[in-house]
Amino acid sequence: MPNNMIKKQLNHRTIREFKDMEVPDEIYNTLLEVARRTATSIGMQQSSIIRVTDSDLKVKISKICNQEYVARAPILLIFIVDTYRNHQIALEQGIDSKNSSDMDRFFQGFTDAALSAQNIVNAAESMDLGAVYLGSVLNDVWKLCDLLELPQYTFPVIGLGIGYPNQDPQLKPRMDVKLRAFENHYEKMDNYMEKINDYDKQMQTYYDLRDDNKAMDKFSQQVVDRLTNVSIKRQDIVNAIVSQGFDLKLKE
Amino acid sequence: MPNNMIKKQLNHRTIREFKDMEVPDEIYNTLLEVARRTATSIGMQQSSIIRVTDSDLKVKISKICNQEYVARAPILLIFIVDTYRNHQIALEQGIDSKNSSDMDRFFQGFTDAALSAQNIVNAAESMDLGAVYLGSVLNDVWKLCDLLELPQYTFPVIGLGIGYPNQDPQLKPRMDVKLRAFENHYEKMDNYMEKINDYDKQMQTYYDLRDDNKAMDKFSQQVVDRLTNVSIKRQDIVNAIVSQGFDLKLKE
Repeated sequence: MPNNMIKKQLNHRTIREFKDMEVPDEIYNTLLEVARRTATSIGMQQSSIIRVTDSDLKVKISKICNQEYVARAPILLIFIVDTYRNHQIALEQGIDSKNSSDMDRFFQGFTDAALSAQNIVNAAESMDLGAVYLGSVLNDVWKLCDLLELPQYTFPVIGLGIGYPNQDPQLKPRMDVKLRAFENHYEKMDNYMEKINDYDKQMQTYYDLRDDNKAMDKFSQQVVDRLTNVSIKRQDIVNAIVSQGFDLKLKE
Repeated sequence: MPNNMIKKQLNHRTIREFKDMEVPDEIYNTLLEVARRTATSIGMQQSSIIRVTDSDLKVKISKICNQEYVARAPILLIFIVDTYRNHQIALEQGIDSKNSSDMDRFFQGFTDAALSAQNIVNAAESMDLGAVYLGSVLNDVWKLCDLLELPQYTFPVIGLGIGYPNQDPQLKPRMDVKLRAFENHYEKMDNYMEKINDYDKQMQTYYDLRDDNKAMDKFSQQVVDRLTNVSIKRQDIVNAIVSQGFDLKLKE
């Protein structure tokens, strides 16, 4: 029998609407402590968190996200890659290292940031809070960096809204794990459409609370829509990484 | 009072040595189910997991990691970005999209992979298993892609070893959360060395089990060492991303 934690993990839903109730500081501080204790690449702690409390700033970020509920999240967090801090720690010791800008370090910080976000989500859900990941903060990275005054050698990874749930969404169907987990080598398949046939049907029984009275499209149709309708600005993410001071070290 | 889950999160240590005991399939399948239920960017499920069970392959990967304990992990997982699967789902419907290669999608998949890894770690620790993240699988991305037969539009993110703990490491000191969490904007400081002074001292009381009878260096010294001694191959990560078929869409 799964324990309570695993029951919560298997029952995870995105919560976008929260009760109009503050989350006590003690609970927020516990979430931060969980983030602090999260595993970190080679111990370097190359990620940081910015909590957005200013209501004007929340509205501006909700506009980047193009989702007005973002402005209402009781806790709004932005997780960032941060090699700036260690660069400064070296600089104060007289070492001005070019290696703070390298993409190996960037990806270490990116992974650290994402791990701490999920650790916070699990802690929050264990305390009956709900959460929504906000990949949409990357809709305009330049604007977000500007709003949060992100210095060189930092970069946003993901946003997170947290609060007491004021909705009870349906559990969203997911594809068969056999399509996502393999043994010893990657397993290419030549009949994905057949293998996701049941999943496609399940998705048509799922009602997203954002879109009343209309079931979702088949997953295979969603994939086509997503691949056809892209955001030019979001595709530009690598240029934003370069703008933030990172060196791709690309070969000719 | 923190609940049991949060107690475990606050008590997280890296476990590198495991008992010589298999993890039952039922437990492994629960971990996979937790990964499947992890939040995923716009529902696209652009990450996958490869479990390495072949003992020769484990040894080869442990050599990439330059850490022989990797070959002994009862469960060894590699988390990957995977936009290949959805590209094929579109292709089977007659759509050959160039957008499967875009870096926006890459980062969505990268984040998905990291979130599912941490969700698995939390589930594992809730069942008294221990875990070690293996960023070192990226020491030679080209070799790893080759060993795991990773197709275009896939990319390794992180490795994870899981098993029943056979060691009880000390809790590793971490810097003050005030240095890592800010409000409304990034907070630059002009005296990091002063602010990490206590942390520097704490680090010197920490004994890594890999390195008997010798406390660690101050954190500020570790930073200098890490910034001075870099791996040229690891710094080359963006070239490996390009080799795996992703399009940086860099502006001139």
